[in-house]
Amino acid sequence: MKDTMKALVYEGPHDLQLKEVPAPTLLHPDDAIVRVTTSTICGTDIHIRHGGLPAVKPGTVIGHEFCGIVEDIGPEVHNFKPGDRVAVSCVTRCGYCYYCQRQQYSHCENGGSWIFGHLIDGCQAEYVRVPRADLGLYHIPKGLVDEDLIFVGDIVSTGYYGAQRANIKPADTVAVMGCGPVGMCAMASARLYGPSQIIAVDFNDHRLKIAKEQGLADVIINPRVEDPTVRIKVLTEGRGADVTIEAVGSKGTLDLALDAVRPFGTVSIIGVFSEPMEVRMNEIWIKNLYISTGLVPTNHIPEIIDLIQRGKLDMKFLITHRKPLNDILEGYEVFGEKKDNCLKWIVTPFVD
Amino acid sequence: MKDTMKALVYEGPHDLQLKEVPAPTLLHPDDAIVRVTTSTICGTDIHIRHGGLPAVKPGTVIGHEFCGIVEDIGPEVHNFKPGDRVAVSCVTRCGYCYYCQRQQYSHCENGGSWIFGHLIDGCQAEYVRVPRADLGLYHIPKGLVDEDLIFVGDIVSTGYYGAQRANIKPADTVAVMGCGPVGMCAMASARLYGPSQIIAVDFNDHRLKIAKEQGLADVIINPRVEDPTVRIKVLTEGRGADVTIEAVGSKGTLDLALDAVRPFGTVSIIGVFSEPMEVRMNEIWIKNLYISTGLVPTNHIPEIIDLIQRGKLDMKFLITHRKPLNDILEGYEVFGEKKDNCLKWIVTPFVD
Amino acid sequence: MKDTMKALVYEGPHDLQLKEVPAPTLLHPDDAIVRVTTSTICGTDIHIRHGGLPAVKPGTVIGHEFCGIVEDIGPEVHNFKPGDRVAVSCVTRCGYCYYCQRQQYSHCENGGSWIFGHLIDGCQAEYVRVPRADLGLYHIPKGLVDEDLIFVGDIVSTGYYGAQRANIKPADTVAVMGCGPVGMCAMASARLYGPSQIIAVDFNDHRLKIAKEQGLADVIINPRVEDPTVRIKVLTEGRGADVTIEAVGSKGTLDLALDAVRPFGTVSIIGVFSEPMEVRMNEIWIKNLYISTGLVPTNHIPEIIDLIQRGKLDMKFLITHRKPLNDILEGYEVFGEKKDNCLKWIVTPFVD
Amino acid sequence: MKDTMKALVYEGPHDLQLKEVPAPTLLHPDDAIVRVTTSTICGTDIHIRHGGLPAVKPGTVIGHEFCGIVEDIGPEVHNFKPGDRVAVSCVTRCGYCYYCQRQQYSHCENGGSWIFGHLIDGCQAEYVRVPRADLGLYHIPKGLVDEDLIFVGDIVSTGYYGAQRANIKPADTVAVMGCGPVGMCAMASARLYGPSQIIAVDFNDHRLKIAKEQGLADVIINPRVEDPTVRIKVLTEGRGADVTIEAVGSKGTLDLALDAVRPFGTVSIIGVFSEPMEVRMNEIWIKNLYISTGLVPTNHIPEIIDLIQRGKLDMKFLITHRKPLNDILEGYEVFGEKKDNCLKWIVTPFVD
Repeated sequence: MKDTMKALVYEGPHDLQLKEVPAPTLLHPDDAIVRVTTSTICGTDIHIRHGGLPAVKPGTVIGHEFCGIVEDIGPEVHNFKPGDRVAVSCVTRCGYCYYCQRQQYSHCENGGSWIFGHLIDGCQAEYVRVPRADLGLYHIPKGLVDEDLIFVGDIVSTGYYGAQRANIKPADTVAVMGCGPVGMCAMASARLYGPSQIIAVDFNDHRLKIAKEQGLADVIINPRVEDPTVRIKVLTEGRGADVTIEAVGSKGTLDLALDAVRPFGTVSIIGVFSEPMEVRMNEIWIKNLYISTGLVPTNHIPEIIDLIQRGKLDMKFLITHRKPLNDILEGYEVFGEKKDNCLKWIVTPFVD
Repeated sequence: MKDTMKALVYEGPHDLQLKEVPAPTLLHPDDAIVRVTTSTICGTDIHIRHGGLPAVKPGTVIGHEFCGIVEDIGPEVHNFKPGDRVAVSCVTRCGYCYYCQRQQYSHCENGGSWIFGHLIDGCQAEYVRVPRADLGLYHIPKGLVDEDLIFVGDIVSTGYYGAQRANIKPADTVAVMGCGPVGMCAMASARLYGPSQIIAVDFNDHRLKIAKEQGLADVIINPRVEDPTVRIKVLTEGRGADVTIEAVGSKGTLDLALDAVRPFGTVSIIGVFSEPMEVRMNEIWIKNLYISTGLVPTNHIPEIIDLIQRGKLDMKFLITHRKPLNDILEGYEVFGEKKDNCLKWIVTPFVD
Repeated sequence: MKDTMKALVYEGPHDLQLKEVPAPTLLHPDDAIVRVTTSTICGTDIHIRHGGLPAVKPGTVIGHEFCGIVEDIGPEVHNFKPGDRVAVSCVTRCGYCYYCQRQQYSHCENGGSWIFGHLIDGCQAEYVRVPRADLGLYHIPKGLVDEDLIFVGDIVSTGYYGAQRANIKPADTVAVMGCGPVGMCAMASARLYGPSQIIAVDFNDHRLKIAKEQGLADVIINPRVEDPTVRIKVLTEGRGADVTIEAVGSKGTLDLALDAVRPFGTVSIIGVFSEPMEVRMNEIWIKNLYISTGLVPTNHIPEIIDLIQRGKLDMKFLITHRKPLNDILEGYEVFGEKKDNCLKWIVTPFVD
Repeated sequence: MKDTMKALVYEGPHDLQLKEVPAPTLLHPDDAIVRVTTSTICGTDIHIRHGGLPAVKPGTVIGHEFCGIVEDIGPEVHNFKPGDRVAVSCVTRCGYCYYCQRQQYSHCENGGSWIFGHLIDGCQAEYVRVPRADLGLYHIPKGLVDEDLIFVGDIVSTGYYGAQRANIKPADTVAVMGCGPVGMCAMASARLYGPSQIIAVDFNDHRLKIAKEQGLADVIINPRVEDPTVRIKVLTEGRGADVTIEAVGSKGTLDLALDAVRPFGTVSIIGVFSEPMEVRMNEIWIKNLYISTGLVPTNHIPEIIDLIQRGKLDMKFLITHRKPLNDILEGYEVFGEKKDNCLKWIVTPFVD
């Protein structure tokens, strides 16, 4: 292992630099060092780039969705050894605090939750230090490769959480507001609950088409063409969807999720909201809803890996672009601006 | 039974008149006519008086929380007969639609939900017509009187629903924002779930004192004296309440309910909101909450009567004032303006 | 409509007779008379034939799983009219008793529950009287035919109930003990909950093969070939299945369901048991199980029809034999003795 | 700390000896040595004495319900230090296995579950070694003494688990079969769920009287005087109890729990069964029950301590006898044979 490495560093709003930095070292006895073999750019990274997350300090290596190979371990790491291929949770956990005992890792009280590429250095680099390695790494089973599991640590877990909190019962109608990668992961997860129909709503016809082709959505709606609330009522005998999932984090999709759900239904919010907004409480209070929110706890990664391994869940079609770390800034342009029908941009290792 | 009767009629905003009107008659074969022996003024009636519910047409007799004696029944009423003493649900139901099959009567699709004193004539009168009588009336058991059950049709059911939707587990901390009659009903209902502490928050010291004295609240907080969010964190090892219940319908109590709950907790909203408002989605999205809303379905009246009969629930202390129908406009002043420490104003029959 | 009809009558143990009997007439204002267009023989009918249900009195027309066309209605039937094509619930309900309010129709307190071909005349006939017709009949949607919906009134509802009570979560392992028609319906229903694998156990290789071919089972086990408990542990990292479903009603399958489930798992029993039996309470008490039992409440027929209509559920492959009512006694032989690889024997109308 | 100590040793069936044995020492870095200040005799110890648990090897110090003071800790114990007063879980857990992640500690896969006085030396001694001390010890809060918390590690947790698994809703009728210490803990825990009535059933009038006096039971039934099933139906409008809890582990109480519950109710079994027995499956299958079983996971000790500290739960009345370790064999006689109205026998430290 080298002393320095290539990494994408946040130097301030609109200032990401691919540069040579010191390689990470073991800081705690339960740390591991992982050589990154596959990583991605996530929507949150785009937020960070634009300065939307002030908690990210200049000098931080960003990125939090990745697979790799264990390079080194501390003396208290028991379940992994150098050479092991691993998928990694974007959420770190201590394992014993109030929230970790309840498998609610996104609110770990001992330095956990989402910290990669946020409060500590992340994965858009050649190496990354993984704290609490036994609790954050997952073995990649034989027969699977990085790209099978690349999304389990973040967006598949997020969609899975969104579906799980939505109380979906067999034969329900589920409408997903937003057909980006997270929305599609929510659809694939919602499918596991036996809905009678999944409805995808987005302004982007290409993404809607893919959702249909991939069997994620039974019905697709572009609000430029027709009013989603009206159409969803037509599709549900006038009642509205049993469940709506908000997968964007905008006022428009939130309003839509609240309007299109039927009385006594559930609205599951997995979009990330960056500001306060007006909510029609005068319409919501009377609808007898459950509204769920939350940062993914990533507590179902073993189950998700199991489903992928058995062919019950497969999100590889999200991978539309692959380039080495050398070209990652191009990835921020293409993925960030949704150019070239990009769904997910995969970062492969740096090529000298 | 007389042909005309005294009744409080909504004639337009700020114009309630106690006047002589035609007495109700049976319109449908499953109707009953009930002679009102006890009724109340509800917070919603205050809204109506001020013109806040445009659905209420001038000429409507208002009021929806009452007990009485069956005076007459239609040929399809099977479970009640003239002379029966009854408590009445404020929500009407058809019994067989999609929502009624699921016991979600507040969204009955066949002319049900809350209609008394709203879409049809209500109970602040000598007589009232009760549609779907078999499904809206409840026998008052021997040994109980009107005042034992006067609140089961509306505010106790509302508090009970608020507690039920809040997912309270034994040893939870429950904070109730608002210590009015509905808030107190929510506290009494929350007590049924074995919480370790119930915290009441209100600006009104008198109400807080009563909540404490009646054993509803373990801790009382007046936001004029101390910051409720800070105090609640101190009382919960820094985490926040497991459950908060919003029982007012204002921006301040909503914000407080969302701030004071811990991550992965539940916020149960039973307040009535009359306008859109700004909600801090940027703070809520990450908290992994369940937020419940809704108009009371009144589907647990038999259980509530059972608990009252066995002495496990008793809200009679809410009755602070009693006067005949003759003086009901005084009641709107006193109850509506929270004068004279009024909690609930009981209307007894008209005295010639 | 004729005054007499052909019907299969239970005259006592081992004595079924196809004979001419009076055709049914409307007895109550909410009755309908249905002309039977498709019916089946059910496992319970085999029990009746052998005298296993003493509640069935000699002279009773048997059979309870059928579709038909409404021939006549009483004055209080509102949702159906002569000529309507209908599927029928095997469970009758009053709609308003304690259990019916909770959608637990199998314990209706007013003459409901399973009565067709049991306490009143059933459907292995040309005509049948359906009590509480508005609550027992279901319209066959355009585009569907009898054979699409023939099983929704009984065995699909039973399998669906078995899966619903089993608390299946995505990625669970579900083992179904018994691969007869009911067991296969349980597998198809369990599939709606996103399990990682469904394991079918039966002595009958032909049925196992069909379960595999139809995509119901991922793994099939014949206890003559290998020990199901051992194999299931191997398939679940040594723990046992998260959920087992007992779909036979015998000691062997019950023991197996209890042995093969993991600690803190669920055992859902939908088999019909006709006698007491020894249960290893000394092994069960420590396993932290939930064990579910019960007669199907048939409260999800609308959802099931919806799933069938949208192609999410299809059990037509169960139909292996079709013959007119004339040959129904042959059906009791073939289906009852599992001859000729019979899964379900369909009875078509009598041919003069 | 001394090198040897007094301890009650199981030497074989019917052969318990109070003798001098080597004091325990730290074996693993996460062990603690606790000086026992208060312990009890449990029903399971009576079983062991009679040779009913062959897993207990001769030479084992028995006992598993105790409080004490930390005497020594290994280097990996972080949350406790010598001198700390502690209550102790009877169930040991590793904290990270499949079951421990789900808080199902009674099936810990790494040497946990119930091991004290069973697979390793227990607490009827002057000192005891506690493995995984950070996960098995609980601080006794200021203001509380040993006897406040002596039962949280076993019987209160067991009753609490029994009530939790019983799905009790407000206004339910709960019948508890068995009014021994565990049954009474189940009643006190069931009370936390707001039932309308708790019914205690036992042959022992003294215990029934105490259950009534302590406010645990609303109704008491002695089967020698009246048929519990009949009486419970009378108390529940003919339906049966919503929930029954079996707290003995015998055929009679199991049959009774299954008979006295209403259709669609729950039977929660917390009794320990030592042999197979005949169960009336022919009557159970049709009742649509959930039947829960299981060894207590002790995952709610913090909540229970919280409830005790706030005065919401208090089982100290169970302590009827107190004597030093010197007299423990007398305790086995008195408690084991239910002499002298003994409910729980408390063992205080050895007196030289």
